Amino acid sequence: MNPAIAATTGSLIRALHARRKATTIDLGLGEPTLMPKVEYFERATEWVAEHGCRYSPNIGFEDVRSAIARHYDYPGLNDPGNVCITTGSQEAVYLTIKTLLDPARDEILLVEPAFPVYAKIAQVEGIALRRVVLEPKDGCALDADTILAALGSRTRMLILCSPCNPTGRVISKAGAKKIADTLLARPGPPVYLMHDEIYRELVYTDDAGELGKVYPYTIAINSLSKSNSLTGLRLGWLFAPLDVMPQIVKMHGWSSSCASTFAQRIALEIFAATDLATARPWYAKQLERATAAARENGLEYIEPEGAFYLCVRVGDPKTLQFVESLIDERDVIAIPADNFAASLSGWLRTSFVAEIQDVREGYRRIAEHAAAVVRSR
Amino acid sequence: MNPAIAATTGSLIRALHARRKATTIDLGLGEPTLMPKVEYFERATEWVAEHGCRYSPNIGFEDVRSAIARHYDYPGLNDPGNVCITTGSQEAVYLTIKTLLDPARDEILLVEPAFPVYAKIAQVEGIALRRVVLEPKDGCALDADTILAALGSRTRMLILCSPCNPTGRVISKAGAKKIADTLLARPGPPVYLMHDEIYRELVYTDDAGELGKVYPYTIAINSLSKSNSLTGLRLGWLFAPLDVMPQIVKMHGWSSSCASTFAQRIALEIFAATDLATARPWYAKQLERATAAARENGLEYIEPEGAFYLCVRVGDPKTLQFVESLIDERDVIAIPADNFAASLSGWLRTSFVAEIQDVREGYRRIAEHAAAVVRSR
Repeated sequence: MNPAIAATTGSLIRALHARRKATTIDLGLGEPTLMPKVEYFERATEWVAEHGCRYSPNIGFEDVRSAIARHYDYPGLNDPGNVCITTGSQEAVYLTIKTLLDPARDEILLVEPAFPVYAKIAQVEGIALRRVVLEPKDGCALDADTILAALGSRTRMLILCSPCNPTGRVISKAGAKKIADTLLARPGPPVYLMHDEIYRELVYTDDAGELGKVYPYTIAINSLSKSNSLTGLRLGWLFAPLDVMPQIVKMHGWSSSCASTFAQRIALEIFAATDLATARPWYAKQLERATAAARENGLEYIEPEGAFYLCVRVGDPKTLQFVESLIDERDVIAIPADNFAASLSGWLRTSFVAEIQDVREGYRRIAEHAAAVVRSR
Repeated sequence: MNPAIAATTGSLIRALHARRKATTIDLGLGEPTLMPKVEYFERATEWVAEHGCRYSPNIGFEDVRSAIARHYDYPGLNDPGNVCITTGSQEAVYLTIKTLLDPARDEILLVEPAFPVYAKIAQVEGIALRRVVLEPKDGCALDADTILAALGSRTRMLILCSPCNPTGRVISKAGAKKIADTLLARPGPPVYLMHDEIYRELVYTDDAGELGKVYPYTIAINSLSKSNSLTGLRLGWLFAPLDVMPQIVKMHGWSSSCASTFAQRIALEIFAATDLATARPWYAKQLERATAAARENGLEYIEPEGAFYLCVRVGDPKTLQFVESLIDERDVIAIPADNFAASLSGWLRTSFVAEIQDVREGYRRIAEHAAAVVRSR
């Protein structure tokens, strides 16, 4: 057995999700509830009827990569050769961390709160990890100065998720520019910036920084999962500089060969129709209603600028224990936010993708449970 | 950059495939040319219209795993919990090698000729590899005694592909039993036996051993790619003992999260219809015609008992150089078989999945080229 794998803990989010019952108000899993457009599946099926369903090149089909490169148009990353199609963004994250760092000497700087998977992959791959933890007293703002001050001499990769899972905070254009300028001015080999931008299409501010636009060593990662309600399709991609792409594609070949041909046809249809941010107004409306419901129930929250999560404060520092009793006693699933950063002890991550009356009822029960826990002390 | 990845060479098979032109007789890539049944895609699309396309559990959907466990019915491995659904068999191979071995002390015994990917993954993961090389003078027979004699004290995994890519040789029932009995009698922790059985449904002998039937520490790996002409669907699976499955599923979560929900629906349809070996008679007929064509052209070959490859002897020990001139001068792609084992220097792997007149013409040109190379010396 590989001791590095045995030493990691499994996904808490998936474990809590597994406790879902038919009656449960589920504010846990980060998955859209909107239905995907079935016509894309129908057209991809027609294509298979004509062409079969054969391997794609390891890197992905040229037409799909070309459509993605053109759509995002990141300077220096806008050639089809800058795009590798992956099995969801998860594989893209894995390939990026695994391929671009030397475990013997390189270090990651991870901006937290963060989805736990980055740290788990670093642990499995034996790569040193440094953390910069943003504080709820600052609204967990993705502050460029705070992030840059944490760079170490061995830092060869900065990992940033913006819009952030779990806070929904977004790095500003000025913040992105400051990070880019500082990293470019740094002597020595480039620091790769893994920008997990999986919530990029769900942004509710005009001031969203895009690292790919300003920093040529950006590894931008995205997928159809969140924008198009296609979590089960497993279609993602990464942008990377041309000089490192052959190594990434080679590792992709060993870990999964290539992404699904069928899923790539669906991606082609979606990019041809520029159907990527169509759901944004619905999410913006949900956010408005969810924050109103949080306020009505007296719940303190971090104001999101993107994604579909709301971090709410329940106070109890035994956050996991709080969540377990919340499930047992009130049939509501939420995620302990200290799973994403120690600074979020006493906070929950809630998804606002459920029917709005369920989100409201969920917040009512969370507030009620928080009050009961305080009383029982 | 990860130096272990940088040190591996890329896929020669894919590189040669990339030289294909419209006129090329392609006997290179290991991919069926039969068309998949489109009705499975239609039914899966109908399911998506009703249910959406959401995440599956990391391990895969229970109904799919249950259908696979029941179909193969390997003793001790026939519970749905013994099956993990993966992104093609490639990810299954990666997870198995990555998870079940400790790079600090364990060693793999690889039976060659073998698909190069096993050795590349071992190299990337820093796992020691021992080889047992079968010889063409013995028809590259998968001889249990030869294999078992090569076990070392640190061997914790035996990797065997039967039917073999590239030779098409199959381990016998008695051979499988002998391997199982010897490994079970060995003191110390179990030796895992990774049985890559991706060509299991394409077997032309009644005496095909199945390791999963006789050895409980078998990691049996398969997919829909070869049996159902669905290489581009990326739907595979692995069987593993219950005690190691949580570690494998955890690593699967980090590397790709879960297999495609859409592809799993197609798998469910195929297993419900027991539509897995339907194409076998067509391949058996192709084999008969391909070996006849090889004989007509005076080409020595290894008699396959499964899969869809024929290894033919061209004599030239500079096999890659021979293949490159074969492509340049005669517009035929075949794979240097010494890519699979040093013992196959002077041999080519040819696929007999093309139209039979193309296979015949390919062999004619290969024989002609071999004769010309001999004359030019």
